Formats: sequence, structure tokens, C-alpha cells
Amino acid sequence: MSKLPLPLNPPVRTLMGPGPSAIHPRVLAALSAPTVGHLDPYYLQLMNEMQDMLRQVFRTENPMTMAVSATGSAGMESAVVNLIEPGDRMVVCVNGVFGARMADVAGRAGAEVTRIDRPWGQVFTPDDLKDTLAKVKPKVVGIVMAETSTGAWQPVPEIAKLVHDAGAMLIVDAVTALGGVPIEVDAWNIDVIYSGSQKCLSCPPGLAPISFNPRAMETILARKTKVQSWYLDVTMLAQYWGSERVYHHTAPINMTYGLHEALRLVLEEGLESSFARHALQHRALKAGLAAIGIRYAAQEGHQLPQLNAVFVPEGVNDAAVRNGLLNRFGIEIGGGLGDFKGKAWRIGLMGYGARSANVLLFLSALEQLLAEQGYKFDHGASIAAANAVYAG
Amino acid sequence: MSKLPLPLNPPVRTLMGPGPSAIHPRVLAALSAPTVGHLDPYYLQLMNEMQDMLRQVFRTENPMTMAVSATGSAGMESAVVNLIEPGDRMVVCVNGVFGARMADVAGRAGAEVTRIDRPWGQVFTPDDLKDTLAKVKPKVVGIVMAETSTGAWQPVPEIAKLVHDAGAMLIVDAVTALGGVPIEVDAWNIDVIYSGSQKCLSCPPGLAPISFNPRAMETILARKTKVQSWYLDVTMLAQYWGSERVYHHTAPINMTYGLHEALRLVLEEGLESSFARHALQHRALKAGLAAIGIRYAAQEGHQLPQLNAVFVPEGVNDAAVRNGLLNRFGIEIGGGLGDFKGKAWRIGLMGYGARSANVLLFLSALEQLLAEQGYKFDHGASIAAANAVYAG
Repeated sequence: MSKLPLPLNPPVRTLMGPGPSAIHPRVLAALSAPTVGHLDPYYLQLMNEMQDMLRQVFRTENPMTMAVSATGSAGMESAVVNLIEPGDRMVVCVNGVFGARMADVAGRAGAEVTRIDRPWGQVFTPDDLKDTLAKVKPKVVGIVMAETSTGAWQPVPEIAKLVHDAGAMLIVDAVTALGGVPIEVDAWNIDVIYSGSQKCLSCPPGLAPISFNPRAMETILARKTKVQSWYLDVTMLAQYWGSERVYHHTAPINMTYGLHEALRLVLEEGLESSFARHALQHRALKAGLAAIGIRYAAQEGHQLPQLNAVFVPEGVNDAAVRNGLLNRFGIEIGGGLGDFKGKAWRIGLMGYGARSANVLLFLSALEQLLAEQGYKFDHGASIAAANAVYAG
Repeated sequence: MSKLPLPLNPPVRTLMGPGPSAIHPRVLAALSAPTVGHLDPYYLQLMNEMQDMLRQVFRTENPMTMAVSATGSAGMESAVVNLIEPGDRMVVCVNGVFGARMADVAGRAGAEVTRIDRPWGQVFTPDDLKDTLAKVKPKVVGIVMAETSTGAWQPVPEIAKLVHDAGAMLIVDAVTALGGVPIEVDAWNIDVIYSGSQKCLSCPPGLAPISFNPRAMETILARKTKVQSWYLDVTMLAQYWGSERVYHHTAPINMTYGLHEALRLVLEEGLESSFARHALQHRALKAGLAAIGIRYAAQEGHQLPQLNAVFVPEGVNDAAVRNGLLNRFGIEIGGGLGDFKGKAWRIGLMGYGARSANVLLFLSALEQLLAEQGYKFDHGASIAAANAVYAG
């Protein structure tokens, strides 16, 4: 007899970290619908519907809009390896972990990479890029719209204009952005954009929505070399997602069920309502945290509603607070990464998780743990401040 | 108001194609368990348990045994891109679609690829490889154990010995093999082996079990160049799956729940019982098909129990039969790929799908459709022959 672990019995968490976010019950239920084949007429219809919903969420008409059969980081790799051929020049804007990751991915794809670095928590202005673009004349520029490691919200439209004026194409990382803040793929003229299922779409991790505009597709179809990744090669994937339905790999059927339902929920609510809800919950959380002296890590005016990175107050033990939240209150938040390791907390208010119940539960648990750490603050002030925001 | 598709309502299919296979109800239920974070202590424990179960199923002690966060084809790419550096020589054995795919993947990774081709449906003997290995002196040899496009069952042990005697490392594709036929990773000295969740493990597609032996890991850790894929780089993944738990990408939590439960089911039944069950159902199906004059595509003595590729009888319309099976009987089987397009049917008896109910339903539906096509056979003979096998 083999050693067998116990059956699954996951604890029920309040997911308020950088993702996975809280999953809507309808999405969880969809995951366990009966599996069909990846060429079943029903599945092909679902793919069409999913593409159509993704276009609505991305606000694009791009035919080549789909979901990569892997997580958000594979979405990043897909964007890069399809556009880049060995020796191509790429400029990557780095102000956190995910910008640095994109530079790494680009280097592995054979790009001549030029990094532009900004301090963590800051965003880029066109002025930060202008000289480099003129000097490097890159084929591609990559930027992270919602930097999950810092909570910084990069305004994309001005950057997009500058990049196109310099004759380059723009890749936008929208992993944490999509569904939480406005994105206009067509209006902003983004060439390739990707996201992940597990952030503001309230679906478990495992799929990466992605969209290539016609200019990106033309560039890819005119490549001199094969895309280095067979799995991510969009020239072949286009034949499965397009009307030919040529078998490529076996699609992740049940994850697609989950994302299909997640997208229905987003569109049922309406994108504008979703953005307003994220903004409201962010204002409530921020007011609560400010009332007890906790500061945001990202530049003022550029703080993401869905990812609130704040500095651990002086004298407070980072790990003790996060462990207390998890083990005593069942709340997951994220710790700092990279430059912010041990210094920041990352509080997610994403998708289904962006609601008052989560904000109020978190603030009350945090106050208790901070009090135990001897941190001085006005007890109850965070809850009162958040409620004042809700009261309008 | 956005256009919204209807809620999910997938038809209940009897999945008897080349995969996805029939999913066990306990696996479907596991998919919708509450999502936890990818660094949650509970999830880290599940990862350990899953690694332990995968080692049992692969019959290996390899520490670096895990699941790639994507489908089986990404498992193939992971095996290849981690071992291969640009300019390395790789020999790939091609006798069907998946061998050809491996050669394509290897070329994209920068390997100097030498293909050895055998007719579709045939397997390789050491004699087929000997001269090439002596001449090419490859770093890596790749072979598909269970060729899903032909149903051919490649005996691995003699090939493994030959490859190692030639100083090369062996990659084995076990996507359709794992759980259906015996695999002994350590006893056969396989360097890298990968599979998919959606075949004989009865889990939906989306994860690729993989195992690297210590020699493969040493080779990878001594690489002069970075692994070309960031997402699949096993040197980084080892730090997440190992005791360091360094964040790499956000793991597909709910798919992991499904595979965890699927592995529990396989080990509960016992591997030997599972192999015997696959073998019995194959004998019954084969007896049934023989009784109505339908021939196997793979070489006699090397036919996989879990993937039965048979020739479409002369005068019978391939598409009409497969559409009839799907639309009137809810049964999915696979059509032919590549050389076998329009000429073969691929009937899967994988994992939970390898049971009498499926064999008898399929044969009775097939008889009906063949009769309508004017195909001449002894009506009822297939059912009687299958039942004779069950009766022992």
C-alpha cells in the first residue's frame, strides 16, 4: 500500500495579497463542470465567447485576443518571445520586480536589452524615456502598468504615444491592472498586452489573457526566425483560436470554464462599475491606514486601487503581523519583494475581494496585531475612517 | 450593457479520444475547493505531497519531481530547453506527431537536431539508433514512449541502455504513458521524463508532471547560458519547489488540487491494478473490433492499451462516424493526425475511462453507425467478443 496523503481540505482564507485574489463562488463552481474535448463544438463556442469577452474587457477589436494556457508570467514570455528575434533591441522600464523580470525574459529571447530604471514606487514620465528611445531606437518597449511589487500605477497613454513616435512597438504588462483600472487597448494603441486570471478577474491562477494588435501580428508573421517557444508561438496558436481550429496543444478546459464565468461576472457588473468599486474600497482602506499612521509605498497620485503597498511601521515585526493575520484571522496579505523585502506589506483589493467586508475585517485584525506589537495609534481610528468614506 | 454569453452548460460526454480523458468525479470536485495563496503553508504542504505522489507514480527518488504550470506540450518544452544549450546535438526519434514536435522544439532551442524516422505505427529498436548515435555523438536523445498519434508503445529500457552507453542523456515523453503502462524512471535510468495531467491520470488538462534525475540537474546547473525560457527554467523552479520556497510564478492552485486528488486515486487503486485494468479493457476492445474486421494501426506486440489507433474501414466515412458518435451518443473519439489524417480513429481507454461501460457503449454505438454506412459485419459480434474477454 502506497503512502497516501489526506484528502484535500484547504482552509478558507480571505485572500488580500497580491494574488491569487478572492475567487467568486460562481467561478469555483464553473471549474468543476463536466470536461469536454478541446475540439468539441461546445468548447469551440466557449473559446469564441471567451475571446469576445476578453476583447470587451481589454477594449479592443484585435482578432488575436485569447488566453495563454499558463499563468501571467507565461503571458509576459509570450508577448516578448513572439515580438523579439535574436539581436532585436528592446527597452524595458524597470521600477519593480516585474519590470526586472521582463528585462530577464527579453535577454533570454536574444534581445539587446536596455533597462531604464526608476526608484521602486515611482512611475515613468515620457521625459524618462525620450533620450533612451532616441539613442537606442528599439524595436520594442516594455512597461508594467500595475507594478505588483510596489503598487505603482503607470499611466500608459503618454508613454504609448512617445514609443510609437519613436517607431517602436509597445508591450504592456496588465497582469494586476486588467479589470481593476481602465485599460483602452485600441484607444491607447497598445501593440501587445497580457494579464493573468488570478487578479482583478477573480479566477484562480492558470491562464493569461493576451491580445496582439494587427501591427504586432504582421511583425510576427514576417519573422525571419521561428518563435523560440513552440508552446507560446502565436503563429500556430492563431490557427487554433482562428477559424481553422488546427490542433496545437490540449487546451486547459476546466480553467477555461472558470475564466469564462469570471469574465461574465465582470461584464455583468460592467467595467465602469468595477473600476468605481475598486476605487471606493481603495479610498476606504487608505483612509483607514492613514488614520493609524501607515504610509503608502507608491508615489502619491499613482497608487493602484487594487494593490496597496504600504511601509511596515517602524518597530513593528513584519513577519509577526503577517503570520498573525493568516493564522489567527485567516487573512492573507503579501510581504515585500526585492528592494521592499521585510519593509512593505502588499494588500490586495482585487475583483471579488474589493469589498467592504474585506477592508473592515482587515483593519480590525491589523489594529489588534499592531496593538500587541506596542505600536502607538488611536484605537478604532482606522475603522472609523474607512466607514466615513463609505458614508460618503 | 455588454453582450453576455449564456452561463456554462457543457454537454456530458463520454471522453474516449486521445485526451482529455474521462475525469473522475472526485477530481472535478477537488477543482472547486477554496483557493489559497501559492505561499500558504497549506499549499506548500500540498506541493510536498504532490511531489511525493508523483515520485511514486514515476517510480523515482528524483528530488526534482514536480508539475509544470502548463499542459503536456510545455512539459516537452521544459525537458528540452533545460537540457539543451545552443549548438548542442540532439537526436530525436520520430514515428508520429509527437516525435516530430520534439524535433521542432529542440530546433527552436538551438539544438543541432538529427531526426531518425520510422514509419508511423512502428517502434524503434536499438539497431535503428546505433549508427546515428555513434556518428552524431549527441548530448541528448529524445523519444516518445506512448505515441498518441499512432498508439505505438515504445519499449524504453533497451533504448535507454544504448543511449547511456553512447554517453548521451535520455528524454522520455510519457504524456500518454504515465499511469496506463509501467514506467520505471530510476530502474530504467531515464534522465528527464514528463507527462500530462489529462491522460491516464484522469485530471483535466493544465499541468505537466516532470522529473529530472540528479545527472540532468547537474548538467543544467552547469549550463554556460541561461535557460531560454524564464517560465520553464528549472534552476529557478527548484527554489520554489525546494525548501527555499522562493517565489517564481503564481502557481495554478486549483489545478493542483485536481492533480493531487487524481494522484491519490491512482495510488489508492495501486499502479499494478491500474495497469491490469487498462490491459483488460484494451483486450476487450481489441477483441470487439477484431470481430467486426477493424485493424490496429500500431505494430503488433507494441499496441498501447490506453490509446487504440485503428484504421477506418474501407468505404466508411470517417467524419460521419465520428460526428455520429459525438452527436447521437455523446462519445468523443479522436480522428487521425498527420500521416493518419482521415485514415485512423484513436480510441482512448485512459484512467477513469478505462472501464467496461465505456467499451461496451462504444462498440454498440459503432456497430449502429457502421451498419448505417453499409459496412458489412456480423452484427453483435463486437459486443459478444468483448464480453467473452470479460468472462475470462
